[in-house]
Amino acid sequence: MIVTVTLNPALDLTYTVDALVPHATHRVGQVAERAGGKGLNVAGVLHALGEPVLATGLLGGATGAAVAARTRPPHRFTTIAGETRRTVTVLDGVDATGLWEPGPVVTGEEWAAFRTLYTDLVRGAAVVVLSGSLPQGLPVDAYAQLVRLARRYDCRSVLDTSGAALRLGAAAGPDVVKPNADELRALGPTDSAVVESHGPRGLIARTPQGAWRAAPPEVVTGNPTGAGDACAAAIARGLRDGTPWPRLLADAVALAAAAVVAPVAGEIDVNHYRATKERVHVQPHG
Amino acid sequence: MIVTVTLNPALDLTYTVDALVPHATHRVGQVAERAGGKGLNVAGVLHALGEPVLATGLLGGATGAAVAARTRPPHRFTTIAGETRRTVTVLDGVDATGLWEPGPVVTGEEWAAFRTLYTDLVRGAAVVVLSGSLPQGLPVDAYAQLVRLARRYDCRSVLDTSGAALRLGAAAGPDVVKPNADELRALGPTDSAVVESHGPRGLIARTPQGAWRAAPPEVVTGNPTGAGDACAAAIARGLRDGTPWPRLLADAVALAAAAVVAPVAGEIDVNHYRATKERVHVQPHG
Repeated sequence: MIVTVTLNPALDLTYTVDALVPHATHRVGQVAERAGGKGLNVAGVLHALGEPVLATGLLGGATGAAVAARTRPPHRFTTIAGETRRTVTVLDGVDATGLWEPGPVVTGEEWAAFRTLYTDLVRGAAVVVLSGSLPQGLPVDAYAQLVRLARRYDCRSVLDTSGAALRLGAAAGPDVVKPNADELRALGPTDSAVVESHGPRGLIARTPQGAWRAAPPEVVTGNPTGAGDACAAAIARGLRDGTPWPRLLADAVALAAAAVVAPVAGEIDVNHYRATKERVHVQPHG
Repeated sequence: MIVTVTLNPALDLTYTVDALVPHATHRVGQVAERAGGKGLNVAGVLHALGEPVLATGLLGGATGAAVAARTRPPHRFTTIAGETRRTVTVLDGVDATGLWEPGPVVTGEEWAAFRTLYTDLVRGAAVVVLSGSLPQGLPVDAYAQLVRLARRYDCRSVLDTSGAALRLGAAAGPDVVKPNADELRALGPTDSAVVESHGPRGLIARTPQGAWRAAPPEVVTGNPTGAGDACAAAIARGLRDGTPWPRLLADAVALAAAAVVAPVAGEIDVNHYRATKERVHVQPHG
């Protein structure tokens, strides 16, 4: 069983308008509404692949209930008093304009309640994936605490976040950290395996077993949101199964490409994945 | 008892940002969330004045549940399968940018269910206020149907809408129609009393009992959203009590001003109302 953690989920709204004009009123043509958050995307990919997965994290208010209702994989969240945030993305044919609500402030009691639930869940899990930003109110070492709790119960961990949460979390020794190239600088030296995402050019992994570069057989165009989460899903599955790194990385690159070609963020094109995974180019690096 | 009808309510979200820049991502500073819709504003004003009122209309989905949870006056809505719309207003220190979701499509069965509920409610009501736009799927003569049903049960009616819904609704003979100056042209000849809103300059009423102009004692600045709804609340209360037109219009102008000075749309400053209502200038017109 794989557990995914989303401490700062969102209800993602996408509005389509003809042209976004500041200080005008717009009738929105189309509204799309989905459960957002990197850990929920990871859970969605694993669920689509038929892998046993459980999504957890923090949800509150009517928006939190809407997120839960739109989460397809099995899930068990800690309820908080604050209201889960929304993100509004306005598409106008040129590009996307984003409006991100600040989200709730989590109390110390709520964080303690989550750690209790989390401890229960990692006891029975092979791998936990810790993804995304921290909501206000949580200690900046929140992921470090979760990494240590997972290790105590022999659960492997994958950390995919940024900034100070990444730096402190990585110092607690997760099995894998998954920064993008920009975040590498924040990371510093670590004993974890590091899987660096280089967008359409693929991945570089530096692990205790060696270093590899994995590149997709062709560049695909589409929606890059969620590609990193598909990659994290592949890493979690590979850790669970003890898959050798070259095969794991090929899987990760193919799943990321399958996420890019799927029109909806957080979903994958399973046929594209199957057609790609044997053709990913993996070679030793450095 | 006064009943207010809101067929196309909304969850109104107001976001504060530093500056709205198309194709950038914005962290929203503040989020305000309220139940929106002209009939809900009317009910809110009457409720704040201590008048018995019941809000009705159509609500659906998680957003509909959020609207119901944020509606302070007593309410009884017909549940629809579609999702109640949101409106997003982005304030950036210069002006407001609006994003209006299209809202649900109402089915014929849902409209029939609402008419049954509405019939129940107008049987026991002195006045019904019919406010705002029609959602998709409703017949354009929806308000005309509701005006006729009210009259069948000796319930007075006030109609505040626009376009074809106003024209057809007015032809069914509500007691009062409340168009703004732009909408007067769409109206055509009518037997109803017509209370025209002229924004900060006040009201002109043309009624079977005579015509009057009512002007506030001073121009107030603030948020004009909801001023017309406060005016409709005064008209409904005056109809219920048989208040002579000059006193009713003074009340309407004072309540509209009290809505403008209240910071939140749909609320009134009761002290401002009390201090203004004896000082409204009403004179015969035309």
